[in-house]
Amino acid sequence: MIGHDDTLPADLLLRAGILVPQDGERRVIDDAGLAVKGSAIAAVGPWNELAATPAREFLDCSGDVVLPGLVNAHTHAAMTVFRGLGDDLPLMEWLSGRIWPAEARLSAEIVEIGTTLACAEMLAGGTTTFNDQYIFARDVARAVHAAGMRCVLGEGVFDTPNASYATMDQAFERVAALEDSCRDKPLLTTCLVAHSVYATGHETLKRLAAMRRASGGILTLHAAENAQETALCLERFGKRPLAVLDGLGLLEPGLLLAHCVQVEAAEALLLAERGVAVAHCPRSNMKLASGMAPVTAMRRAGVRMGLGTDGAASNNALNMFSEMGAAALLAKVCEGDPTALPARDVLDMATREGAAALGLDNVGALAPGMQADLIALRRDHPALQPGFDPVSDLVYAAHAAPVRLTMAAGRVLYKDGRHLTIDRRELDLALEGVRQWARGG
Amino acid sequence: MIGHDDTLPADLLLRAGILVPQDGERRVIDDAGLAVKGSAIAAVGPWNELAATPAREFLDCSGDVVLPGLVNAHTHAAMTVFRGLGDDLPLMEWLSGRIWPAEARLSAEIVEIGTTLACAEMLAGGTTTFNDQYIFARDVARAVHAAGMRCVLGEGVFDTPNASYATMDQAFERVAALEDSCRDKPLLTTCLVAHSVYATGHETLKRLAAMRRASGGILTLHAAENAQETALCLERFGKRPLAVLDGLGLLEPGLLLAHCVQVEAAEALLLAERGVAVAHCPRSNMKLASGMAPVTAMRRAGVRMGLGTDGAASNNALNMFSEMGAAALLAKVCEGDPTALPARDVLDMATREGAAALGLDNVGALAPGMQADLIALRRDHPALQPGFDPVSDLVYAAHAAPVRLTMAAGRVLYKDGRHLTIDRRELDLALEGVRQWARGG
Ligand SMILES: [Zn+2]
Ligand SMILES: [Zn+2]
Repeated sequence: MIGHDDTLPADLLLRAGILVPQDGERRVIDDAGLAVKGSAIAAVGPWNELAATPAREFLDCSGDVVLPGLVNAHTHAAMTVFRGLGDDLPLMEWLSGRIWPAEARLSAEIVEIGTTLACAEMLAGGTTTFNDQYIFARDVARAVHAAGMRCVLGEGVFDTPNASYATMDQAFERVAALEDSCRDKPLLTTCLVAHSVYATGHETLKRLAAMRRASGGILTLHAAENAQETALCLERFGKRPLAVLDGLGLLEPGLLLAHCVQVEAAEALLLAERGVAVAHCPRSNMKLASGMAPVTAMRRAGVRMGLGTDGAASNNALNMFSEMGAAALLAKVCEGDPTALPARDVLDMATREGAAALGLDNVGALAPGMQADLIALRRDHPALQPGFDPVSDLVYAAHAAPVRLTMAAGRVLYKDGRHLTIDRRELDLALEGVRQWARGG
Repeated sequence: MIGHDDTLPADLLLRAGILVPQDGERRVIDDAGLAVKGSAIAAVGPWNELAATPAREFLDCSGDVVLPGLVNAHTHAAMTVFRGLGDDLPLMEWLSGRIWPAEARLSAEIVEIGTTLACAEMLAGGTTTFNDQYIFARDVARAVHAAGMRCVLGEGVFDTPNASYATMDQAFERVAALEDSCRDKPLLTTCLVAHSVYATGHETLKRLAAMRRASGGILTLHAAENAQETALCLERFGKRPLAVLDGLGLLEPGLLLAHCVQVEAAEALLLAERGVAVAHCPRSNMKLASGMAPVTAMRRAGVRMGLGTDGAASNNALNMFSEMGAAALLAKVCEGDPTALPARDVLDMATREGAAALGLDNVGALAPGMQADLIALRRDHPALQPGFDPVSDLVYAAHAAPVRLTMAAGRVLYKDGRHLTIDRRELDLALEGVRQWARGG
């Protein structure tokens, strides 16, 4: 954390070559200044107006484009330990032959290592905030807290025993334990997590929804991911997945649904009307051949949308720049319209709108009072030149340019290729253990 | 170029943490060695067998994954000067409102700067070879030669006047001049380039095909890119695009077609039977909403396929790692099959198979006698960990990891973020001129 000095108006003063504040005014400010006090932004404006601000530290990003840290609205961070462990396989062969046997052998330690690896990757890729849902969530919390990232996280509640818990009582104990362990971690917020309408029992879903209402946070689950899920719901419940959720009374503000590929026009309107948010995961939907979410229809209806990578087993990167590009490109080819999902909308989804979908109202834009979560990319990287349109460049080209600096809550976590909160040597050693574990050792 | 010493068996000895030679045996060699003599590879094998090889220089890539330099089978390098100059627009508004007016004002100087920027970007992204087609190709050649990259390039022949030439005689003078200027540039090979069956006259197409047969090189054009082209061909010629080419006698070995989105099953078989190669450009096809090429059908038929970025105006990055990921993911969602176009096939398309599509038989694999075109990525980048399957990681995750070293013909062109053949300060100055030019100045 930056040293705090109450006698100064700012702890940190940053100069940005180009600032893309995402503050709703669609501004792009050349030669900008940004002042940070504690974990929040104190001022944003042209450099010549802020240059004289007294501050303890100065961060020179005058050669960079600076924007809010990216928000990954749906992932399972620990699944980095499964990256490359069986790609290009039929879905059931992949799940039952590779992922499930490995998940059955998961431990708190493996989850913590996998989450730390995910944090290292996300920080190097400019992500500062993510929504995580997995088992052993208390160990996820420990890793994310150590990395200094912002996270809305929960213990996934299934109605089947798994490596983390054997009974539903134990599952809810895990949920309560996570709550406790996050109380003293200011960048962590808990959420409630079900798996889906087919892998979490309906009484459990209703119980989680009631808990969410009491807490005021969010409840998230996978929904309408692919045609098989729709067929299963029709067969088992006589309704499509979103209708099942509606029947249970779950479609309300505070619900975040991941995927929403199988969404018809009327369902898009229903989601919007009920204030349900969606985490769109284009690369996962492509890799698993789940289909193409009707993004334009949902946005036109007014659905609040974030962008998520999903886990590293179905992507296989946790990189929000790639996800932005994939979202923008997939929508166009899916709808046969080169104007579908323009760059500006995609950057909104990856910043302020994604943050709002996670229930965070002080993240995703660079404006006074917002949290100082920001990233910087060198403007002179060839992929960002000639630089006619910074927002277009960020969405369509910046995935090829390395992120230079990543900051969350006013604290620099990654800079010039080095992680400042993660001990890479220790992580590499731990990953050697993961490789042994994967070999069954 | 590496210093040459005839008394030593190798000029350069390289140690690779992991070597993915792409030599047809699907091998991945841990702790490998590679010896370079002149511009070619002298030996490849386990490090312990090669460690004692006397060499003038040693390159330590023991922390890296080393693979052949990537081959971009279709681009228009100079179009980097249009990057971000009008995205998210309807196709005709983009072309007639933005691209064509800017292209009409192109000059040899702007083309040379744009090509140098493209080379800088491609080298930073691990591409060593590309196929280029644009006007002012002699200036493209000058830039590529200075950058030290390998290129198969041609002057695009249209039947309409443009900034490079006013008459067809002048167009063919340009073609001959390019030929002359490439004679003393060992890494440059010329090819013949038409635009398409609708923008290049049919007599011109036949003349280019006859020239190709005489030269033994390749002829390339855009074909079957989208539904509008098919409709236009049906209306104007009474046939689909590939049938038009067939009627002109062009479907033969040595023809390379870019895009091939609108290809029916029988057409895929025809392309394979005639030995026609295809440059698949998934990101461009997505961005322009052109559609999804039937990649699996073409590969099953036996069509030789490369992978191309197309120009930076319709992508907007010239990054083959992104292109590999897009190819692998798009095929899966397009065909509703998560096993479609596996990582191994994609890496082939981006290396040896793409090189073969360009008529290069000594590029795209790391084996004795092949040209020493190779790249290295740090294994310890979080996106490449835990590293269970290097080929899967290269296709699905490596786009997020910066390339550490790029070498063509035994010469290091890019290393640790620095370009060794391109003066970045001079380029940045030239790009300031490009920005003025774009503003109409
Ligand atoms: Zn998920
Ligand atoms: Zn093209």
